[in-house]
Amino acid sequence: VLKALQKVLPHERLIYLGDTAHLPYGTKSPQTIIRYTMQNCAFLAAYGVKLIVIACNTSTAMALEAAASQFPIPIIGVIDPVIEEIVSSGSRIGILGTHATVASGAHQKKISALLPSAQITAVPAPLLVSLVEEGWIDHPMTHLAIQEYTRPLIQAQVDTVILACTHFPLLKILIKRALGPTTRVIDPSLSVAQATKQKLTDLNLLCSETDYHEPLFYVTDDPERFARLGPQFLGSPIEAVQLCELELKELF
Amino acid sequence: VLKALQKVLPHERLIYLGDTAHLPYGTKSPQTIIRYTMQNCAFLAAYGVKLIVIACNTSTAMALEAAASQFPIPIIGVIDPVIEEIVSSGSRIGILGTHATVASGAHQKKISALLPSAQITAVPAPLLVSLVEEGWIDHPMTHLAIQEYTRPLIQAQVDTVILACTHFPLLKILIKRALGPTTRVIDPSLSVAQATKQKLTDLNLLCSETDYHEPLFYVTDDPERFARLGPQFLGSPIEAVQLCELELKELF
Repeated sequence: VLKALQKVLPHERLIYLGDTAHLPYGTKSPQTIIRYTMQNCAFLAAYGVKLIVIACNTSTAMALEAAASQFPIPIIGVIDPVIEEIVSSGSRIGILGTHATVASGAHQKKISALLPSAQITAVPAPLLVSLVEEGWIDHPMTHLAIQEYTRPLIQAQVDTVILACTHFPLLKILIKRALGPTTRVIDPSLSVAQATKQKLTDLNLLCSETDYHEPLFYVTDDPERFARLGPQFLGSPIEAVQLCELELKELF
Repeated sequence: VLKALQKVLPHERLIYLGDTAHLPYGTKSPQTIIRYTMQNCAFLAAYGVKLIVIACNTSTAMALEAAASQFPIPIIGVIDPVIEEIVSSGSRIGILGTHATVASGAHQKKISALLPSAQITAVPAPLLVSLVEEGWIDHPMTHLAIQEYTRPLIQAQVDTVILACTHFPLLKILIKRALGPTTRVIDPSLSVAQATKQKLTDLNLLCSETDYHEPLFYVTDDPERFARLGPQFLGSPIEAVQLCELELKELF
């Protein structure tokens, strides 16, 4: 998502917070995910940001509403922007996400509201998160896991699949290969970046500068591990990563 | 470990705390693991327990010393008890653990101190944690992962392998099969339970009751998920699991 934001909004100053001390979110409960999301938003709000993108499907599914009601800043999630893209796309829709995202039914409800006739097959694919975190992108285990997780999607003859976890676009080529050439595989990142640009435009908050700023990177645990794995996602080196001690729990 | 403690100390009242809101520990940094371990010990200490078993290799490797210096209660980890078992066992020793446990060098240092001639091969096997958490015990992916992780151990011709993560005993049969019949595979749980009994005996703290008490189960996230997965580890049903809100952070 950050990569897409950099592309679509090259002049904005981006502050990235990775809550690595608490990941993964996808196997945790709604209350815990809401608590973590509130802490993260509080950190960014304290920075005086003009908009927050919750670049995690689990967090969006569970905590976007709570965050939007708590913070007086526009907050964009990764679910709404992609739903509109779906409507024009197909009628048999597959969703690959974490346990929590799939169980929340967030995608399912929004798709059904816009496309009542849509047939939706949602598959939790939690091990893909672990495999990407390990950097095992093109590995026999990853192939096997994708084969396993795409089987119910193939059986349901889906024509469109949403990569409903921000780890999965790294596996897009493999997932596409497993699903076959007639299935459209959607990485929501670009829709999210475009929705962000639209929101900033609407609010007259687009940056008027023309120079480029390196994003600021914060993580809640082990900056070194992040600096090592992050570039795989971002597609470019990560210069400096700072540790952010999220000791803001008492606020909530 | 709980299962072994129940077996060796059937009359003690056991309180189990699973820090499920923060797991996995094995990919996190020493500072974060220490912080979480201190919170966990503070919760148990507030319960007035007479002894704490840190039933996690990562936490033992990173935080046992810090915890022992902070709390005036005997604290037993899962590393020391198994090292003595090793000495009598072999000279080419393999260790399967998490990233953090292997990187800490805790096992390696202690084995070398007792057996200076030992050849040690330590392999981080993080995906085995995710596979067990998913309940994929006898699954083609698990077979493939074990094949991958045991390869360097087989190449090093180890005669003994320590299962240095409390998730791995669930995979003991598969790991043993991959390593072959001449390699001894050690689950530290029983040594830990015996060391606990010895410590309680030495301190004259052994329970004199003769009836059995169900353990009390606390988790920091999603009791339902724990109640579903826990019995796989424990080998018996888990009756009631309570949510423990670890809001003790301000203490440290």
